[in-house]
Amino acid sequence: MIKVGIIGATGYAGNELVRLLLQHREAQIIWYGSRSYIEKPYADVYRNMFQLVEEKCFDDNIEELANSADVIFTATPQGYCASMMNDNILSKTKIVDLSADFRIKDVKTYEAWYKIEHKSPQYLEEAVYGLCEINRDKIKNARLVANPGCYPTCSFLSVYPLIKEGVIDANTIIIDAKSGTSGAGRGAKVDNLFCEVNENIKAYGVGVHRHTPEIEEQFSYQAGFPVFINFTPHLVPMNRGILVTAYASLKKQRKEEELREIYQNYYKEEKFVRFLEQGICPETRWVEGSNFVDVNIKVDIRTNRVIMMGAMDNLVKGAAGQAIQNMNLMFGLKETEGLLQVPMFP
Amino acid sequence: MIKVGIIGATGYAGNELVRLLLQHREAQIIWYGSRSYIEKPYADVYRNMFQLVEEKCFDDNIEELANSADVIFTATPQGYCASMMNDNILSKTKIVDLSADFRIKDVKTYEAWYKIEHKSPQYLEEAVYGLCEINRDKIKNARLVANPGCYPTCSFLSVYPLIKEGVIDANTIIIDAKSGTSGAGRGAKVDNLFCEVNENIKAYGVGVHRHTPEIEEQFSYQAGFPVFINFTPHLVPMNRGILVTAYASLKKQRKEEELREIYQNYYKEEKFVRFLEQGICPETRWVEGSNFVDVNIKVDIRTNRVIMMGAMDNLVKGAAGQAIQNMNLMFGLKETEGLLQVPMFP
Amino acid sequence: MIKVGIIGATGYAGNELVRLLLQHREAQIIWYGSRSYIEKPYADVYRNMFQLVEEKCFDDNIEELANSADVIFTATPQGYCASMMNDNILSKTKIVDLSADFRIKDVKTYEAWYKIEHKSPQYLEEAVYGLCEINRDKIKNARLVANPGCYPTCSFLSVYPLIKEGVIDANTIIIDAKSGTSGAGRGAKVDNLFCEVNENIKAYGVGVHRHTPEIEEQFSYQAGFPVFINFTPHLVPMNRGILVTAYASLKKQRKEEELREIYQNYYKEEKFVRFLEQGICPETRWVEGSNFVDVNIKVDIRTNRVIMMGAMDNLVKGAAGQAIQNMNLMFGLKETEGLLQVPMFP
Amino acid sequence: MIKVGIIGATGYAGNELVRLLLQHREAQIIWYGSRSYIEKPYADVYRNMFQLVEEKCFDDNIEELANSADVIFTATPQGYCASMMNDNILSKTKIVDLSADFRIKDVKTYEAWYKIEHKSPQYLEEAVYGLCEINRDKIKNARLVANPGCYPTCSFLSVYPLIKEGVIDANTIIIDAKSGTSGAGRGAKVDNLFCEVNENIKAYGVGVHRHTPEIEEQFSYQAGFPVFINFTPHLVPMNRGILVTAYASLKKQRKEEELREIYQNYYKEEKFVRFLEQGICPETRWVEGSNFVDVNIKVDIRTNRVIMMGAMDNLVKGAAGQAIQNMNLMFGLKETEGLLQVPMFP
Repeated sequence: MIKVGIIGATGYAGNELVRLLLQHREAQIIWYGSRSYIEKPYADVYRNMFQLVEEKCFDDNIEELANSADVIFTATPQGYCASMMNDNILSKTKIVDLSADFRIKDVKTYEAWYKIEHKSPQYLEEAVYGLCEINRDKIKNARLVANPGCYPTCSFLSVYPLIKEGVIDANTIIIDAKSGTSGAGRGAKVDNLFCEVNENIKAYGVGVHRHTPEIEEQFSYQAGFPVFINFTPHLVPMNRGILVTAYASLKKQRKEEELREIYQNYYKEEKFVRFLEQGICPETRWVEGSNFVDVNIKVDIRTNRVIMMGAMDNLVKGAAGQAIQNMNLMFGLKETEGLLQVPMFP
Repeated sequence: MIKVGIIGATGYAGNELVRLLLQHREAQIIWYGSRSYIEKPYADVYRNMFQLVEEKCFDDNIEELANSADVIFTATPQGYCASMMNDNILSKTKIVDLSADFRIKDVKTYEAWYKIEHKSPQYLEEAVYGLCEINRDKIKNARLVANPGCYPTCSFLSVYPLIKEGVIDANTIIIDAKSGTSGAGRGAKVDNLFCEVNENIKAYGVGVHRHTPEIEEQFSYQAGFPVFINFTPHLVPMNRGILVTAYASLKKQRKEEELREIYQNYYKEEKFVRFLEQGICPETRWVEGSNFVDVNIKVDIRTNRVIMMGAMDNLVKGAAGQAIQNMNLMFGLKETEGLLQVPMFP
Repeated sequence: MIKVGIIGATGYAGNELVRLLLQHREAQIIWYGSRSYIEKPYADVYRNMFQLVEEKCFDDNIEELANSADVIFTATPQGYCASMMNDNILSKTKIVDLSADFRIKDVKTYEAWYKIEHKSPQYLEEAVYGLCEINRDKIKNARLVANPGCYPTCSFLSVYPLIKEGVIDANTIIIDAKSGTSGAGRGAKVDNLFCEVNENIKAYGVGVHRHTPEIEEQFSYQAGFPVFINFTPHLVPMNRGILVTAYASLKKQRKEEELREIYQNYYKEEKFVRFLEQGICPETRWVEGSNFVDVNIKVDIRTNRVIMMGAMDNLVKGAAGQAIQNMNLMFGLKETEGLLQVPMFP
Repeated sequence: MIKVGIIGATGYAGNELVRLLLQHREAQIIWYGSRSYIEKPYADVYRNMFQLVEEKCFDDNIEELANSADVIFTATPQGYCASMMNDNILSKTKIVDLSADFRIKDVKTYEAWYKIEHKSPQYLEEAVYGLCEINRDKIKNARLVANPGCYPTCSFLSVYPLIKEGVIDANTIIIDAKSGTSGAGRGAKVDNLFCEVNENIKAYGVGVHRHTPEIEEQFSYQAGFPVFINFTPHLVPMNRGILVTAYASLKKQRKEEELREIYQNYYKEEKFVRFLEQGICPETRWVEGSNFVDVNIKVDIRTNRVIMMGAMDNLVKGAAGQAIQNMNLMFGLKETEGLLQVPMFP
């Protein structure tokens, strides 16, 4: 049994880690970390866990936790994980960081977009970007995995085969993304009240959203040169789900079938990426509660652009599910262990 | 492996059966019956099942199916199951009927409330009312189980200990129930369009809802005399969930603690009924996707009434989950097999 | 032009006052009071008001405001209005208090349910309960009007004709009410976040909700003796709307037609109470944005009870609309001025 | 009093026409046309109109109606209006067609995208595209106005100043639009059921949506050359509202301030277009129920693109409100008559 500690267990991503890990046959949660609810029974914070979790919340003592946990998930605000990281911890336990601290290799880029100082840049090189579909082998041997952001996961998997294959002009990529409200977290803010979100749609962080450089970095690796994109997230009145609608110009005219073959090739072995049948648009309802990303494309010959679409549950493949997928790889388990939930509809 | 046939697999309850059975270790679906989608791939009707279900939908041939299936779930309109039932079928397979056809013992009551003729009243006596928490032993040996209605399940489990113990005056019971919209089915009706249901709450079927006699019959068994109640369902703009708020007069003044002990006693061995801590109201969000029913009570000494509350996922414990719980009992499996999904929030 | 000051203009009820008053031909807002947003442009707090309201928010200076305003609406937390009230203010201006401070005549009851000391009980006798349909004449001459609570307004108008006429046993009344989330206010609380409210229904304040004694007091006046009821509010995932489902035992058997005549008689002159056709249930969607209360009843001869139902927009007839209706009466205007918005659907 | 006939009064746009016209001081509805509800009281189809509309629905007799109505609104399926149009009608009454029949000047384009034959192309030249902000003068003298589509209205007003001024490369325009569900109409389809739309977001009509050529035509007029765009609509789980997020490359680097000045210039006299303050994103909640379009832009110097955003109520400015704005112009009334509803929030 893998002993798991969660720091930040009372956010939505933390609660989703708990939900999934309770159904994982090889893992056991030994620490429910939460600064806000110290000593409070976890099931009082999330009553879905009544009679399922008996433990109380503990303070965020990562040093102590490193002694007993085989792996620690940090589902914490930006800056926390970097500020706590040291050799002692990494020598005793593995870390899957759900924050952005170790996702971006260039510390200046991180600091410019996140507006905070990075407290342990010395680990950036070692940290593995935990997008299992592309870094599977590196993850297996990693001590420190940077779990990708929700938007970057969905954006990347929707787009990257066409970058990698040089089919699209990478600097024409525009990503228009839409997310459910759980992505905004459980903090008590007026902007996230029911009456403010319900019956509304809005763009936010236009031109300045922090997931932009993360996506660009990963796209750049695939392209082989620096890629700059437009990324516009929107808030949708639903609990879960991310939909990505991405646009790019084709370098030369292509038939949709050709591009479909590329995707089929890239994803034929991938359990969690479902490349849909021609003409079917991904929809968030079809992946809810599961670790699937549904992907499809449409070529518009009138404008010589391709529209690439992806749908995903932001709390599963976009956070807790992918973190567990990483854990499975790091511990030599079957990659799908604990992650085969059938999407729940409606 | 238990071979399962589903007739009515393309309704919401049918799809939920599929979701749960795909995660059941001892059962395998061999027949996706659907009159509306014959020859259509099941995953084209419910795209959450893409790559998970390869089969097509078949016509509703219960006679043929009885030859190959160990158990048949009928998630069909009222009247269908009764019209098809015969000795041949029952001699070859087991039936869990999710419709109302065999729930009410008195054929006249059935016909009066459902406004249709009952085509096989000869099986009413044999049929077992599949509320596992009270009929567990009978279900184990049953050939034909009448899976309870969603409202009756939640109403019964919220109220019956106080009837059975003679604490409340059963003829003062008023049940005010609220349901998510999946309970209205997947039929294309103006009344169930998004814009009609969203941003609205309404009562419906006031005084004439068909679940009334079903609840009354079960209450009467517990009381030992005929019980008549008021039952008012409401439609709530959410996908899943039923909340029951029930009221009854106490025969004599009682402390809440006394009544709590009764519930604790009744439910201490029940895996799927969670009697909550004092002061905590059941909420549908805490049971979504799971087979749990959360129950609690509040005594109002000012009026000498008790308010009994229950929350449940109408598609799981209120339909597909309970059907599988019945199947587990009928086949000597562990009652919880395939039903330990942790409630998903948010 | 009536000069109107609003104290508490940045809550949801305050914003609704602004919306309605901007469309009122005889009133003009001169003061947007808000403790939380002093000096901030009102349209920065509610961007629906962009280019419609140029003013900034002011501090809550009721003494100063009394010098210039013809009427002050206090849409403030419990206790504020009572704490500020004095002869000087009442000699200069009229007050419509949207809080509960002056609704309950018995100061001990107020203090017991609201858990705060009443700071100006000397004005309780003078204050008029502003339910226009029953206190129209008193309101016309009032200096201080206690605007009724949202639940009490809807509950009262749904039920009182049958109490007044002695048709029902008033002490059997049970009110099961459901409200949209705007009723919970704009405070930043985890419980009111989108993800907590959406896809959920719950009861709250069971047995202890503060609107209970307000309803009971008004019912008692109609009955002529003390009435005690059960009142259970529920939170529904929608922005606006209250639905009341009330139950009571008939003193003797009655035909529905008889009871319908009573309602028709009571409401035939009432512009804002719509007694629906037989068999039609009130629904919140049909009154949204308007000052209407839709009411109907159903007699259940099986249990000899009557179910009384009402639907209303909690921010209009349940708050701002009724406040303006009171203002109209107090200033001798047409009662419907500024309140003839057609309900908006969908 | 202008006598108004509505053909297609029982769709959502028709009901919105009724809501707005009931509050219009110079117009009176004399005909509630509906093929589906002939002889049924209008208020039985839309119960918000109870006691407000006494009339029954009539069959769609446009010839008869032309004799008595000063203006006819056709809120009908594509093809209807074109199939009925003739000189006799146009000589007797004015027409505002809310369908697409007369929006596109090129009949081949119309027929290619709508897949139906145009039955009266002879009126295409005469028909005026009823986007009041650009065709105000032509509308004043028009007999036949083609009321613009919802997406085109919002897209056009968000983007056109920068096309007209030659600031952006018009053939790089990508429009990613999001609409509430009322845009899908009141037809009983499984895809529009509450449980299918709720908790979901999807793109639809990717590359083939019929509003594409309408937008392109209007853009082309502004550009002076043929413009081709990508237009992708999405369905959002809310009742009302359209949000447009549009992207285009700047011909040369520009400061945001320069572009803001262009918009300010274009819209300073426009009552219904609100160009927002810098940094504020349009949101559908701030325009709900009103005829406003909120517009703003953001320049991204990293990619040298501009993001243009617009929010609008699809049933008001996107349908019924704009139709009435057209009527006001056609009859020499104040353009804002009956259209000054303050946006309703929440």
